[in-house]
Amino acid sequence: MHKVTFFPSNKVVEVEDGTTVFQAAVEAGIDIGGSCGGSGSCGRCKITIEGHCEDDQYALKSENSDLHLGCKTKIKGDVFVLTSTEAGQPQISSSHQNILSADLSPLVISKIFRASKPSLENSEADFERIKRALCKNDLTASNYTLKKLSVLLRKYGWNADAVLHCDELIDVVPSGQRVYGLAIDIGTTTIAAELIDLQNGEILSKASEYNRQVVCGDDVISRMMYEEECGQKRLTELILSAINNIVEFFNKDIHAMCLSGNTIMIHMLLGLPTNNIRFEPYVPVTNFPPVWKAKDLGINIIPSAPIFIIPGCAGYVGGDITAGVIASRLSECDTPSLLIDVGTNGEVVLGCRDWILACSTSAGPSFEGGGISCGMRGISGAIDSVCINGKSIEYTVIGNESPVGICGSGIIDAVAQLFQNGIIDKKGRMKDEEITIADKITLTNDDISNVIRTKAAIFAGCCVLLDVVGIGFEDLDFIYVAGGFGEYLNVESAQVIGLLPSLPSEKYRVIGNASLNGANLCLLSAEERKKAGKIARSMTYVDLSSSNSFFEQYSSALFIPHTNTEMFQKKLSD
Amino acid sequence: MHKVTFFPSNKVVEVEDGTTVFQAAVEAGIDIGGSCGGSGSCGRCKITIEGHCEDDQYALKSENSDLHLGCKTKIKGDVFVLTSTEAGQPQISSSHQNILSADLSPLVISKIFRASKPSLENSEADFERIKRALCKNDLTASNYTLKKLSVLLRKYGWNADAVLHCDELIDVVPSGQRVYGLAIDIGTTTIAAELIDLQNGEILSKASEYNRQVVCGDDVISRMMYEEECGQKRLTELILSAINNIVEFFNKDIHAMCLSGNTIMIHMLLGLPTNNIRFEPYVPVTNFPPVWKAKDLGINIIPSAPIFIIPGCAGYVGGDITAGVIASRLSECDTPSLLIDVGTNGEVVLGCRDWILACSTSAGPSFEGGGISCGMRGISGAIDSVCINGKSIEYTVIGNESPVGICGSGIIDAVAQLFQNGIIDKKGRMKDEEITIADKITLTNDDISNVIRTKAAIFAGCCVLLDVVGIGFEDLDFIYVAGGFGEYLNVESAQVIGLLPSLPSEKYRVIGNASLNGANLCLLSAEERKKAGKIARSMTYVDLSSSNSFFEQYSSALFIPHTNTEMFQKKLSD
Repeated sequence: MHKVTFFPSNKVVEVEDGTTVFQAAVEAGIDIGGSCGGSGSCGRCKITIEGHCEDDQYALKSENSDLHLGCKTKIKGDVFVLTSTEAGQPQISSSHQNILSADLSPLVISKIFRASKPSLENSEADFERIKRALCKNDLTASNYTLKKLSVLLRKYGWNADAVLHCDELIDVVPSGQRVYGLAIDIGTTTIAAELIDLQNGEILSKASEYNRQVVCGDDVISRMMYEEECGQKRLTELILSAINNIVEFFNKDIHAMCLSGNTIMIHMLLGLPTNNIRFEPYVPVTNFPPVWKAKDLGINIIPSAPIFIIPGCAGYVGGDITAGVIASRLSECDTPSLLIDVGTNGEVVLGCRDWILACSTSAGPSFEGGGISCGMRGISGAIDSVCINGKSIEYTVIGNESPVGICGSGIIDAVAQLFQNGIIDKKGRMKDEEITIADKITLTNDDISNVIRTKAAIFAGCCVLLDVVGIGFEDLDFIYVAGGFGEYLNVESAQVIGLLPSLPSEKYRVIGNASLNGANLCLLSAEERKKAGKIARSMTYVDLSSSNSFFEQYSSALFIPHTNTEMFQKKLSD
Repeated sequence: MHKVTFFPSNKVVEVEDGTTVFQAAVEAGIDIGGSCGGSGSCGRCKITIEGHCEDDQYALKSENSDLHLGCKTKIKGDVFVLTSTEAGQPQISSSHQNILSADLSPLVISKIFRASKPSLENSEADFERIKRALCKNDLTASNYTLKKLSVLLRKYGWNADAVLHCDELIDVVPSGQRVYGLAIDIGTTTIAAELIDLQNGEILSKASEYNRQVVCGDDVISRMMYEEECGQKRLTELILSAINNIVEFFNKDIHAMCLSGNTIMIHMLLGLPTNNIRFEPYVPVTNFPPVWKAKDLGINIIPSAPIFIIPGCAGYVGGDITAGVIASRLSECDTPSLLIDVGTNGEVVLGCRDWILACSTSAGPSFEGGGISCGMRGISGAIDSVCINGKSIEYTVIGNESPVGICGSGIIDAVAQLFQNGIIDKKGRMKDEEITIADKITLTNDDISNVIRTKAAIFAGCCVLLDVVGIGFEDLDFIYVAGGFGEYLNVESAQVIGLLPSLPSEKYRVIGNASLNGANLCLLSAEERKKAGKIARSMTYVDLSSSNSFFEQYSSALFIPHTNTEMFQKKLSD
């Protein structure tokens, strides 16, 4: 018998050797798609799988893709299966269009040029002709660009737009053509992206995907353990296949990319070993990765497109936190504020213009749907808010569709409502094993335990940082709450369960995916890119694993809302 | 029956379908090695082949190698075979150690650094630690370098040498380790290279190989035609496999490379299309290729090693000529001098400090052994000088070995001696079909015709350039004679056959492989690299194909020494 673990639900079934993933999913009660009932004809039950399996005949593996047909993949050992492998369009919040504080100075710019046609009198080489037309004698270009240059120049009749990154020619495009960039947040569990018009900064589309590495482990530590055991190659392939799937979803020529992610995800993407991050003194290869080309990393956009990676501060405080600080503007104020970024790692930043402290907690992926039996990302079909009145449960679903799962904001609402209605106790226990939120969508005692552990870790992180500086929640200017779910988070519910302290609502700024917003800003502005370096250099990392007070705080927070209920009974600064 | 053409001898045999290359060579009277008599056990009859053949079972193909065993390769159609595929050590002339006119400032430098060991108090990332130790905040590095950085730093105990190219970290090596560079001349027929100690400029070793592209055609035009018909991929592979063979021969960690070659060879190496060079107005993709990394080109040295390519002037006057001008110092004098570079293209440069003219003639590969029945490069076993006294023929052989062929300087000597002894007439005809120089080494009437065509093209090129400026040979400061054979060229013999005019010997400077010497200088000096750009920009290309006088001059030179014998009877400036 082999053990099959499904992500995101974490459901486990034992099956006989040779069972297909489709059959195992049916047994586990999980819908992995597949309208043909497992005959292989509809091609919809796509999965990512890790472990011993057989699929030679029906493999969908193409370059940088890592998808298999669930109904044709036979289980031959213990496996992990990611069932949701399609890039999806997440909710788009109109309120979080980024407003650049500086001039638009994107990572690549396009510049019109008019070159003369070659003749016997002027037989200058193609590349030198462009240099002259652009008045850029120092222009350089990669082999990817030069190989196609002659064809492009002749196709566009010697008048076109040069796409430039600093002194490098990235591409030649028809005059006036839109130039697109991608901002990407590479989370441990979820990858989120925005397609951006680089000429006006407009966000044209959004997409998200699970980080396919989830089949190799839930959190960064287990991924690094996987790397130690099996090497890094597969981890890099999995992260790339998810990114390339998003690229395919947007289906545009993309000329620049800005990536934000924690240090371990960035190392795995770049193919840099993480073994020295894992153990004391936790040393990355680099916190300031140089700008490399898409092709060199295996990202399927314009080959010479520059990839700007937001710099980080330490092994466990990466560029995603720098990006959050940029997006929140926390470092631009005189009074300290708190930034809480709820992801698989719950990261907390406390700081102001003069100083910034940061820490990272292993919160777990509950609020991204991971480890929750009916959990999912905040895309179409996800229950994103829940209201319980006595025995009646009301909910809203993203895209007004039939519910297929429940996402972070819905989970927080549900737990808060269950607590307020007396259905769960302080420890998060229900009398029954589970409660039904909607048809086939349930929350179990285990789900609620996961949620409590996550919120406890994050709240404890906040308390430790405040202790270090010797201030309290009431001294804060603002509390910025970020995370994939964050845009639609009900702050009241978060206060009820003890994820956030009971401050007046005007103290809260729910800023959505701050890591992605920061990536967006860095993609569009040279000043923000410069600021990113400054923030990364000035942040001080507080190591919670060596902090006694963290474990005390964590234990106290393993209740709804907290051992110290006083903190949640009155508005602290009222 | 299939036609088999062997290079360098140009011998052709017709064989039945399925004959092995080894059998065909025996039939043609060519020794392609193979001490086991064709059983496949000795593995010495290595060949490069183009055309329809079968060798699946015994192919020697490995990454970037293109060698087959002749005894196990069956001929299935018309084929071209290059029989000499081993890198060989050419004669080393002690007189041509380059003397740098400027400071030693090689393409990469090594710089010692002492970094502190990471600790919990200082857990700075590896790459940032090096930046600090080198006081280089802007340091960048490619993915190839960063991937191995952590391991190297820990292996060398945080004190080591950083190998740097401008602001880029190329490698980390043990403190004080020698850093090697390669200067390479990529000729149409021959590739020659020098291994150089970058810290003192010393030439440590030399090697040469046939450019394996010879199986796709003798000259640049036929190579471009091959590209048009069959694509460029194979041409790029062949040139790379020859370069990588030389790299293997030197067997050292090489951190930088400077390449000199004609525009078409460079385009084929870089994977840039040549179709616009072939036809009017003869436009290359670039004459100033940017500095790329070895790995991106497929050259098997340190992956991030920078490849500096000497800039050229036009489609038919490439970086090899720029390199020749640098090596000859022609552009640093007030009085005009002439540079004659005898390769597969005979290139001629006329100029001084204020102006430079250049032209290119399709001389053919005779002086590199190509198209000569017993021709070979100037490596061990080649007859390099010949003296005929009545019926006795004396000769010298490189390496004092038994002669296996005859190289350029030997061929020129032989033709001159045959003419002076009345064995051949003004038209280069012998009474017999061939004459034996040494055991199994003969010269045929066809060989001599090839030599005359080559020397006529080069001499005509010289005359045209002088005509353009309105000066004569007697107005020249110096005549620099360059070419693979050049170091050992007997100028008297060259005057006898009419390759060179009858000027006093002190007017001649035989400067060896000037293209290679120029590459050496550019590898070692930033000033020379800058000068290369200046020379390439200032050269004026004279197109002989549109010059009526060229054809007149060529026809007049198709005699020994020339129609106008007066030019060769007296020392012109006596």
